[in-house]
Amino acid sequence: MANAQKQNEQQESITARAANYGQWYLDVIRRADLADHSSVRGCMVIKPHGYAIWEKLQRELDDRFKATGHVNAYFPLFIPLSFLSKEEQHAAGFAKECAVVTHHRLVSKDGKVVVDPESQLEEPLIVRPTSETIIWAQYKNWIQSYRDLPILINQWANVVRWEMRTRLFLRTAEFLWQEGHTAHATEEEAREEVVRMLDVYADVAENVMAVPVIKGAKTPGERFAGAVDTLCIEGMMQDGKALQMGTSHYLGQNFAKAQDVQFLNSKGELEYVHATSWGVSTRLIGALIMTHSDDVGMILPPRLAPIHVVVVPIYKTEEEQKKTIAEAHTLAAELKSAGIVVKVDDREGIMPGAKFYEWEGKGVPLRIEIGPKDIEKNSLCLVRRFVIEKEGESEQDLRKRRKSFIPRAEGVTTVKSLLETMQSELLERARIMSRARTKVIDTLEDFEKFFTQENGGFAWVHWAGNSDGEDQMAKRFETSIRCLPFPDQIIPEARGEGKCILTGKPSKQRVVMAKAY
Amino acid sequence: MANAQKQNEQQESITARAANYGQWYLDVIRRADLADHSSVRGCMVIKPHGYAIWEKLQRELDDRFKATGHVNAYFPLFIPLSFLSKEEQHAAGFAKECAVVTHHRLVSKDGKVVVDPESQLEEPLIVRPTSETIIWAQYKNWIQSYRDLPILINQWANVVRWEMRTRLFLRTAEFLWQEGHTAHATEEEAREEVVRMLDVYADVAENVMAVPVIKGAKTPGERFAGAVDTLCIEGMMQDGKALQMGTSHYLGQNFAKAQDVQFLNSKGELEYVHATSWGVSTRLIGALIMTHSDDVGMILPPRLAPIHVVVVPIYKTEEEQKKTIAEAHTLAAELKSAGIVVKVDDREGIMPGAKFYEWEGKGVPLRIEIGPKDIEKNSLCLVRRFVIEKEGESEQDLRKRRKSFIPRAEGVTTVKSLLETMQSELLERARIMSRARTKVIDTLEDFEKFFTQENGGFAWVHWAGNSDGEDQMAKRFETSIRCLPFPDQIIPEARGEGKCILTGKPSKQRVVMAKAY
Repeated sequence: MANAQKQNEQQESITARAANYGQWYLDVIRRADLADHSSVRGCMVIKPHGYAIWEKLQRELDDRFKATGHVNAYFPLFIPLSFLSKEEQHAAGFAKECAVVTHHRLVSKDGKVVVDPESQLEEPLIVRPTSETIIWAQYKNWIQSYRDLPILINQWANVVRWEMRTRLFLRTAEFLWQEGHTAHATEEEAREEVVRMLDVYADVAENVMAVPVIKGAKTPGERFAGAVDTLCIEGMMQDGKALQMGTSHYLGQNFAKAQDVQFLNSKGELEYVHATSWGVSTRLIGALIMTHSDDVGMILPPRLAPIHVVVVPIYKTEEEQKKTIAEAHTLAAELKSAGIVVKVDDREGIMPGAKFYEWEGKGVPLRIEIGPKDIEKNSLCLVRRFVIEKEGESEQDLRKRRKSFIPRAEGVTTVKSLLETMQSELLERARIMSRARTKVIDTLEDFEKFFTQENGGFAWVHWAGNSDGEDQMAKRFETSIRCLPFPDQIIPEARGEGKCILTGKPSKQRVVMAKAY
Repeated sequence: MANAQKQNEQQESITARAANYGQWYLDVIRRADLADHSSVRGCMVIKPHGYAIWEKLQRELDDRFKATGHVNAYFPLFIPLSFLSKEEQHAAGFAKECAVVTHHRLVSKDGKVVVDPESQLEEPLIVRPTSETIIWAQYKNWIQSYRDLPILINQWANVVRWEMRTRLFLRTAEFLWQEGHTAHATEEEAREEVVRMLDVYADVAENVMAVPVIKGAKTPGERFAGAVDTLCIEGMMQDGKALQMGTSHYLGQNFAKAQDVQFLNSKGELEYVHATSWGVSTRLIGALIMTHSDDVGMILPPRLAPIHVVVVPIYKTEEEQKKTIAEAHTLAAELKSAGIVVKVDDREGIMPGAKFYEWEGKGVPLRIEIGPKDIEKNSLCLVRRFVIEKEGESEQDLRKRRKSFIPRAEGVTTVKSLLETMQSELLERARIMSRARTKVIDTLEDFEKFFTQENGGFAWVHWAGNSDGEDQMAKRFETSIRCLPFPDQIIPEARGEGKCILTGKPSKQRVVMAKAY
């Protein structure tokens, strides 16, 4: 009975995006069984389906890190408090909301476990919010001469930032991420590294996650604390808001100076090392959800789908059950040997419709239904999780276009090519969505109209203002400069010089302004 | 100059095992560049070479977890203090030396960063020493009926135990591990799981790490806090001491009761869920080092070696340099296409001998030296990192046996088969070592002699004592019962019934006693 109740809960419909975007987001996560709130404030539990997606994403990233010459290592979870005082700007940015360890022992008292006041640490320890300080304290011992450079290290780790308002995947107190920390002999080499890793992130975003992004630089006010330059990739979510999906920082010699890391260059002179750091996190799963999902649930790009194809046998009689299940497993074996991950859903006591609903909610790209007639006709019924929507198309027409019948003999080849098609169509679908909410804007009036009456999105505007100007825009419109796009990222209609939308001063290029997560 | 100095340091000889085993262990880690002490008390830095070994080990374990039906997930780093009071025995075992988070904010004061006293948490948080309590708090929400069972989840994570005396890899305040936490409807199924996962650990230990282990059960005094039964694998290190390499626990219904996790069984009755947990950690790298390494440095089983083969060109003239380096890369490409990981060490300004020394220290299984004569003769000079030592063999003879010349055309096939041979010979070598220090003992006199005059090892003794008896043995000989071996693990000469070595009472089977890490 409890189970029946649970099944019913799972079948509860998802709040429509149009009705309540925030609730829709949480409903998709619940329906796809990606994550849960935990008993610890602001910390989430990443459930198996969510973690499987993260593992696939990790593999894609890690392979690219290694292909670009990086190695993995692991540094301590804790940072001595004094380390944070070493790099002023960095400390100001990060030494705020942290988890602070002050004691190291518990004792039993009156049948309860309590903190032993005798066990206070001489120096409090911070749970890493990011690892620059602890890693550079180590690099100091590893670097003597230019021959020890570059150091190209990445770390997969958990970090903690004591966020007050949290949201599953997008902003949690503890989150999982990777942080690259590299050390270079010259500024030029370090800056090349920063661009290289941003390109890796953009490659994974577009070609693996199917999320189009704009590559660019942050304004001084939006830079990483302690960075000389912060590059970023920005994606547009379905509510028109921007999501910063990855950052890559040129840290200059700031951390090297803070930790006194000098090296002998080839001329025998002492120099400070140049640093970079770059990271992406489980936030990317939030980006996946908010870019692709619909009112039925999750939509996953095939390259990140833990299951590519679910096969559902359809039967009425016992004989049909035997036959269709046998055929389902035969087909699954064929698909598996072609490298496709298949799940045969032959659970008893669950109606096919409920199965369809469950797997669609989880974002499985393809469903194959196998009934007695399909076997008879030697054909397969394929249902895609999505197609690119046409304007004004009815729900019924859309459903029809998702379904196709193919000869049984072409099963494997069709599934393979269909998965590839869906991967590229998902990117195209996201591009269409993003383009529809992208506008070149030249006046504050149009800007206001865009963000109030037209639902907003990415506004390409000329900018020559300063931090004060950015604050003004933020107060008035809740927008921020997402980035100064690289020249090759500028859309054709936004190219050229012009006048700052706020100050009217001459501007060399447009920036992207948007509301953001 | 700094670099030259560093090179000299690297060439410093390793302390001989026979001279100072503890120092030898640290020297091997330094020479192989596996890990470093960090700026944080008791926490280590796992350096790229050490982490690469851990990654390979993770992959081997994770593949087996998935093949046995498990999925990965992620639970919070923090545990609310009150959770630890829920399971008494567990709390008594773990709620001692923990990192305790009490505050969540830092502020700047007189140019320094300090803990904000205003930011004290209402309830302190413990950095997980293990995750049973936090995970079962979650399982409570996931389990209603028998249809929700089993839950077969594993987590890769960092955990913290505030150890006073730490040792790289073997015992550190923070360490990396995996912890499986499963939930079952019946005791029988849970106990099957516990054995299944112990078998996975033993498989990885013997067939991947090449470390022979004994599978068995712990005595009540050595059980995991809160467990009904603890199974373990125990390996013998080169100093004759035992190392507990992995444990698998049947937790009964203890955690389910503590967190009130009940389910409706198929008869519609409420029952408490049966739990297991099982884990291995970065400690396994300590086991690798202490089982195989020699006075030159690390010895790695090919299946865990981040680099299988290093190719070193040997030349005098510039022409020879060009030729040998070109040939090295040609060979490397051939090996790579056969799935072998190869490193061509064509660094200039470093003598071949220094290169040999460096890669031997890091444990690379095979070296290929390519000189002009080898090219001329169409042959390859292969040097194995180790061979099984013969008694009384001179250092020179040993070195001779490690080297062989083979026809160039047979390079790939020979290297492939040699790596396989080395994998199994390494296990055989460890078995020989372990056998030599294993003894069936029937009197306390012989027992004492074994652990004082004969250097000790694994003593198979009859036992019918209790915890007091174990304490007596520990005080007198510094030994403990490592396990009650499973019947199929008992060596032939140790089979049968007998009398307890301490009490003289009748005993059904022998146990393994040893000094231990």
